[in-house]
Amino acid sequence: MQHFLSVHDATNIDTLVNEGLQLKKSPFAHKHLGENKTIGLLFFNQSLRTRLSTQRAAQNLGMNTMVMTVGQDSWGLELEEGVIMDGGNAEHVKEAAAVMGKYCDILAVRAFAGLQDREKDYAELVMTQFKKYAGVPIVNLESATRHPLQSLADCITIEEYKTTARPKVVLTWAPHFKSLPQAVANSFCEWMTRRDVEFVVTHPEGYELNPDYLNNAKVVYNQDEAFAGADFIYAKNWSSYEQYGKVLTKDPSWMITQQKMDLTNKGKFMHCLPVRRNVKVTDEVIDGPQSIVVEQAGNRLWSAQAVLKQILETL
Amino acid sequence: MQHFLSVHDATNIDTLVNEGLQLKKSPFAHKHLGENKTIGLLFFNQSLRTRLSTQRAAQNLGMNTMVMTVGQDSWGLELEEGVIMDGGNAEHVKEAAAVMGKYCDILAVRAFAGLQDREKDYAELVMTQFKKYAGVPIVNLESATRHPLQSLADCITIEEYKTTARPKVVLTWAPHFKSLPQAVANSFCEWMTRRDVEFVVTHPEGYELNPDYLNNAKVVYNQDEAFAGADFIYAKNWSSYEQYGKVLTKDPSWMITQQKMDLTNKGKFMHCLPVRRNVKVTDEVIDGPQSIVVEQAGNRLWSAQAVLKQILETL
Amino acid sequence: MQHFLSVHDATNIDTLVNEGLQLKKSPFAHKHLGENKTIGLLFFNQSLRTRLSTQRAAQNLGMNTMVMTVGQDSWGLELEEGVIMDGGNAEHVKEAAAVMGKYCDILAVRAFAGLQDREKDYAELVMTQFKKYAGVPIVNLESATRHPLQSLADCITIEEYKTTARPKVVLTWAPHFKSLPQAVANSFCEWMTRRDVEFVVTHPEGYELNPDYLNNAKVVYNQDEAFAGADFIYAKNWSSYEQYGKVLTKDPSWMITQQKMDLTNKGKFMHCLPVRRNVKVTDEVIDGPQSIVVEQAGNRLWSAQAVLKQILETL
Repeated sequence: MQHFLSVHDATNIDTLVNEGLQLKKSPFAHKHLGENKTIGLLFFNQSLRTRLSTQRAAQNLGMNTMVMTVGQDSWGLELEEGVIMDGGNAEHVKEAAAVMGKYCDILAVRAFAGLQDREKDYAELVMTQFKKYAGVPIVNLESATRHPLQSLADCITIEEYKTTARPKVVLTWAPHFKSLPQAVANSFCEWMTRRDVEFVVTHPEGYELNPDYLNNAKVVYNQDEAFAGADFIYAKNWSSYEQYGKVLTKDPSWMITQQKMDLTNKGKFMHCLPVRRNVKVTDEVIDGPQSIVVEQAGNRLWSAQAVLKQILETL
Repeated sequence: MQHFLSVHDATNIDTLVNEGLQLKKSPFAHKHLGENKTIGLLFFNQSLRTRLSTQRAAQNLGMNTMVMTVGQDSWGLELEEGVIMDGGNAEHVKEAAAVMGKYCDILAVRAFAGLQDREKDYAELVMTQFKKYAGVPIVNLESATRHPLQSLADCITIEEYKTTARPKVVLTWAPHFKSLPQAVANSFCEWMTRRDVEFVVTHPEGYELNPDYLNNAKVVYNQDEAFAGADFIYAKNWSSYEQYGKVLTKDPSWMITQQKMDLTNKGKFMHCLPVRRNVKVTDEVIDGPQSIVVEQAGNRLWSAQAVLKQILETL
Repeated sequence: MQHFLSVHDATNIDTLVNEGLQLKKSPFAHKHLGENKTIGLLFFNQSLRTRLSTQRAAQNLGMNTMVMTVGQDSWGLELEEGVIMDGGNAEHVKEAAAVMGKYCDILAVRAFAGLQDREKDYAELVMTQFKKYAGVPIVNLESATRHPLQSLADCITIEEYKTTARPKVVLTWAPHFKSLPQAVANSFCEWMTRRDVEFVVTHPEGYELNPDYLNNAKVVYNQDEAFAGADFIYAKNWSSYEQYGKVLTKDPSWMITQQKMDLTNKGKFMHCLPVRRNVKVTDEVIDGPQSIVVEQAGNRLWSAQAVLKQILETL
């Protein structure tokens, strides 16, 4: 069964990227594929881009959609096996996933990291349980440790905007006052280390990512050095992996400013959004000509549609 | 106008059961019926199976769907007639139902019992008001005292899994720490007493159901005696009808265990879900080969589709 | 680009009214227009009629729909430019609007007045920002100062129910204990002063509307005098514009009673709903033969469909 939980489910990234670019040109060329098919979108957390782009992608493919906010529209879900369910969660994911698999041809699930218990988050319990019990393909709409539809959209965007055969792509940590997951950064590393790019990660000490996801990417602790000659600056905040979930610094000198962008090779500014303006990046940069954040977000539609198309072809 | 509020709206249960089984084989055979038709799903309470299975059933029939959480997406609804509306509810059901009937071809409504005022709950104010004012067919998605789409799915499931012409079906109370409605139990009695089965209800003293719904079903206070030779064990918790809404006991000896299932005739285990594992039933039973709870929930789709098909044929 | 934010976007009201009346007769005559098109409905506030009628209108035109509650389904949106985003809102409307415009062919937005800061509310920040940044047509589903889809439905309703060539239409303030926006009253004035009717506004002193919206409509402070010979009584509460957002009086003598309706020329009773029964209007009036509130709400579907049809024809 063809799931899409991580880069490991992408048999060929080039094919997926090209599929996305083709769909962008001909969005409705495959409407027959989704006929009589329904996708269920399940949100344990808030969403804007993912919620709307995945729905639209499914509609472009002729599918019906159903959206549900877990614990609000439906019951809270218990994820642990073997427990006495006398707490707040009225339903076990075992039944919930299996039952939803009876009503949906594909299930797409968002469930963020709790950032309290590293082992638990990195065990990816929600995705694992849905994969195990639903009986239908599962699509990751951002899990505790990954956001592969975002990464695929990022690959498509870099493909569109690159001006050299092998661009320099820099993932830079940016400051934030809240504790945020590592998912987007993890995933970006997983995908970029498999692309034909010069990839550099930069962050303050203590913000080292999980090596399994970093995948031997080059790490530079000096942001200015990392930015030198970059074609793409990909900004993102994440909390510490080592001191799990902790905000070790809010050092404003890591905010992306025009001065820093000037160190690059007229580099494009990317961010997965939402972004805190004038906390992570200045208005000047995000509103300026180097920013491609809106086009990047627009490509979420084509990354979702490429993945759903591939899955529909196996059903 | 053909509503579906209770068993009394099911002119022929056999026909509905067979319709459901037919639709399970050919889900898309009647897509023309729902063309240009829209169903509105209104939830006063949470839902997983009902929310998704009814949407999917409508989609299979070619209908459009709209889902609304009352009091969250929309205004809180006043149900009492003649009141000065200076409280928390901004809109009267009279207008709300009539107006929604202008936008929807069918309205499906979920509104649980409040469990504070027995007379009020059993007056079924929400369903009655919607039936009176909406001007379109109303489908009960679980009301204060009934859950007929669940019961129809249960009939379909028993029809599929029975191995004798006249199986023994046991409705057993199971312990729970919260006060739950009688709706599922009431409805199951209403439907089972009209089927060709040997039907037995078992519960602790004090948990007697409303006689109008029990419909002369045989009651046995000894759970083990009830289970003897059973082909189907249908577990459900409900709060007291006599001491209305009270939890009189949480006696764990009423939990469904494998030891108890062994008293049956290799009986199938059923539950409408969600279920509290290791409170109402052990993991061993629900995960074991006698459990058909997922298949039962899957049949919610076909029970909803059978009912919607019959209604669409009258529009 | 053809937006629909106010009466100023309605090039010809007669045409829109007739379009609405035509669509009421042939709801599905233009299903091809919406093929492969998606409308996004964004709610900053609760909704019943608007939420359902706009969805249904889009479905009748063959469109797909996506509904999102801002700040609940998605992130809270920052509306001010140039701020350091270290508060509760995680995303700026600049990005949010631009991104949603990538996924939707039309965006429809509801955002009520905050009633704290008059200048801010009357600057119509949300509508202005969406219009500026989304890159697709914006439809106003009730903004801080206007509710044009309601006003168009009101025009359609008056056209249907008028019995003289130039009916007398009275907008009357009615009491309410909460602070409500001026949007519906403002809009009704904007539209009625452009129709061939005798239009009179009546309210207690201190409830004068913004002159830019009142548009030289005649104001009478004596409710009985205003009602004399009226063909349509349009009741609505609003808070003070001068003492912004204040409830200056709850004077029950302004409630619409049958005695007052008897002063009219067998006048029809209208209200945009939801309405507080026996606070703004007696049961006797709203349930009586002069009330057309349900028919009026029903016309919300045709006003939305007329507007969406006009926009789709430009895409």
